[in-house]
Amino acid sequence: MPLMRSWVESANTPTTDFPLNNLPCGVFSRDGDDPRCGVAIGDMILDVAAMEESGLLRLADEPVLDVPFWNEVMELGPQAWARMRILLLGFLTEGSEVKSQVEPFLVPQHGSKMHMPFLVSEYTDFYAGRHHAFNVGSMFRDPDNALPPNWLHIPIGYNGRASSVVVSGTHVRRPLGQLKPPGSDAPVFGASQRFDFELEMGAVVGTASDGMISVAQADDMIFGYVILNDWSARDIQAWEYVPLGPFQAKATATTISPWIVMRAALDPFRTTTPEREVPLLPYLREPGPLLYDIALEVALAPEGKTETVIARTSYAEMYYSAPQQLAHHASSGCPMNVGDLLGSGTISGPSKDSRGSLLELSWGGKEPVSIAGEDTRSFIADGDTIIMRGHCQGDGYRVGFGECRGKVIAAQAVPDWAR
Amino acid sequence: MPLMRSWVESANTPTTDFPLNNLPCGVFSRDGDDPRCGVAIGDMILDVAAMEESGLLRLADEPVLDVPFWNEVMELGPQAWARMRILLLGFLTEGSEVKSQVEPFLVPQHGSKMHMPFLVSEYTDFYAGRHHAFNVGSMFRDPDNALPPNWLHIPIGYNGRASSVVVSGTHVRRPLGQLKPPGSDAPVFGASQRFDFELEMGAVVGTASDGMISVAQADDMIFGYVILNDWSARDIQAWEYVPLGPFQAKATATTISPWIVMRAALDPFRTTTPEREVPLLPYLREPGPLLYDIALEVALAPEGKTETVIARTSYAEMYYSAPQQLAHHASSGCPMNVGDLLGSGTISGPSKDSRGSLLELSWGGKEPVSIAGEDTRSFIADGDTIIMRGHCQGDGYRVGFGECRGKVIAAQAVPDWAR
Repeated sequence: MPLMRSWVESANTPTTDFPLNNLPCGVFSRDGDDPRCGVAIGDMILDVAAMEESGLLRLADEPVLDVPFWNEVMELGPQAWARMRILLLGFLTEGSEVKSQVEPFLVPQHGSKMHMPFLVSEYTDFYAGRHHAFNVGSMFRDPDNALPPNWLHIPIGYNGRASSVVVSGTHVRRPLGQLKPPGSDAPVFGASQRFDFELEMGAVVGTASDGMISVAQADDMIFGYVILNDWSARDIQAWEYVPLGPFQAKATATTISPWIVMRAALDPFRTTTPEREVPLLPYLREPGPLLYDIALEVALAPEGKTETVIARTSYAEMYYSAPQQLAHHASSGCPMNVGDLLGSGTISGPSKDSRGSLLELSWGGKEPVSIAGEDTRSFIADGDTIIMRGHCQGDGYRVGFGECRGKVIAAQAVPDWAR
Repeated sequence: MPLMRSWVESANTPTTDFPLNNLPCGVFSRDGDDPRCGVAIGDMILDVAAMEESGLLRLADEPVLDVPFWNEVMELGPQAWARMRILLLGFLTEGSEVKSQVEPFLVPQHGSKMHMPFLVSEYTDFYAGRHHAFNVGSMFRDPDNALPPNWLHIPIGYNGRASSVVVSGTHVRRPLGQLKPPGSDAPVFGASQRFDFELEMGAVVGTASDGMISVAQADDMIFGYVILNDWSARDIQAWEYVPLGPFQAKATATTISPWIVMRAALDPFRTTTPEREVPLLPYLREPGPLLYDIALEVALAPEGKTETVIARTSYAEMYYSAPQQLAHHASSGCPMNVGDLLGSGTISGPSKDSRGSLLELSWGGKEPVSIAGEDTRSFIADGDTIIMRGHCQGDGYRVGFGECRGKVIAAQAVPDWAR
């Protein structure tokens, strides 16, 4: 598919994340006004909330954009999502007859503040990257048996904490927690010394279910995707996670990019999961290519310094797709809801510089990563900003996600009563 | 504290769960009408939603009982909860001057349908019963090292699935899932053969937090308690839970009793957690007794047959209290919200007939439990109803929770595409 040209000139450049082909959904505010729904186009935002208010955009009998989140649009279902896309394409396409009516609803991205684009109902994180699972298993268990026995059969997941999901740009406070220093008999309570990021994609569930769903149905239920950073305190995790899994190690924050890129925009970039090493059970078999070829990168910028890209990989490295994860999630009869967020699991590639966490990049701290010549990092230092970016590369254009950015600030002082 | 007498005569009997001392919060409907907030008194329900509508009960400047859940009352905070209790006591106490005005707002519990009493924001389940952890560790790991090394230091928890929480009386469909039959190399997909209950108490968080909280603050944040059955598919769990914990094994349903018993009603029955085997870190130390002496029982009724009580225990068996769990939950900076539900973990006592799950009662299926003379059970059979009850015993009265009941119905047939 070629670039679809828009009368918004900045949308026609090969490096913008937001050509007409994209049209992702976000929530923004300006000058301290109330947050409202908007759609990115080039370096502008189309104020679709104001368009609905004016009567120019009508998605349903009742207003659905009069709230600062996209959940009500999701509730309308896939046909309405497709219809919305057609309307937006008509408004913004080069030569549109309604340009003069639409133009007043454009505001610059510059100077706009982005907010959470949707209300997160529940958040589930998976462990579905083959290279990541192998790396972690090699470090903590045994390189000869790095993958748990269930890994090639189940898209392993665990429930996370929806209340901790924040939008790009939100500072992340280094967590406190129980840590067991090497050689010590007992744990201490203090700031995590091994605070890490995890590069993931997040799938936003846009349709509810109750009972089993096929992988194809699961794909239809997904409204769109975001980049996701599942911040992880490795030392808290190491001490707490046996036998019931990660808990406080993952509860501080999960950052998402501010624009939900809808499935239709990603469709031209579909690709297949890798060949199965063992056959999957039928309920997990894919009807077609359900991954996307999304080029991803992670950069680290120490306080006041320029950033260094420390990893480059692709979403195509996943062993399980989001629809497979969603089908598995629903298989027990677990009710899935509009606004559920599914983290893909850390996305690492096969090479050393394609690993999606510092744990892997520094191999548990043994091989610190070089940052802009002088510094090194085994884990995140206070003041560091982690920036994740991703895009699908088209012919002369890209469909991008915007940044997923978070600065780590110092831990809360341990209160006197906790000393 | 003695029985507080009410002009509602049925509230003065020694066996009612709902004397004036209790006044628990529920949501009910009659004859297909919309669900509404009510307070149990004897065998009646006080229609507090209608009382607010009429102007007789006023809890805040704006209505808070005009919705079919108690979250808005919780949002008002602990002082408002105390004030509400004083108002209700005044309405219902023997000799009340407003009896004639209040009486029209009483409806019988008989013929009323109970609904979820609150919107569950997020659901967390803990593993904080010493005997349960020891039993499970003995069965699956090693009796000499039954407790994981972190168990005496951390109230171990994991995030559950809020969407699966249902009110007492809701049928529970046996889950499908991946199972690995003994001796088999590969998993199969089918109905759980080892479906179980877990007897727990649930703490309802009524105040939000963001950052560390002390155990005393955590206690103040709890609105009340319910009985909770954390249905568990042991065979799905055994195959899926390494390394990231239970997921689909616990996602089918969690049943709660319909009445939230407020902390003030439980106050006379406070008791201490057992002596610590190793000292806790300061952030987990309790300022006073934070458990409650709640007598609990579990009964099983096969389809069309009478029930057999198969376990009796007490909430006082917990090693960690709900305020300790909540303080730990918030320790990483995890934002806690109004409507969060914390499951205590399975409550087992030291004796064989005080175990809070069939897994323990039947010792992994090796010692089936006798049911009403003829049947036995290692795990739950289709058609079985599990009934949990609990109360605090006062001098001539009890403060009870009502039933936490659920009937297990046959699994969904595996669809053709999943065979």
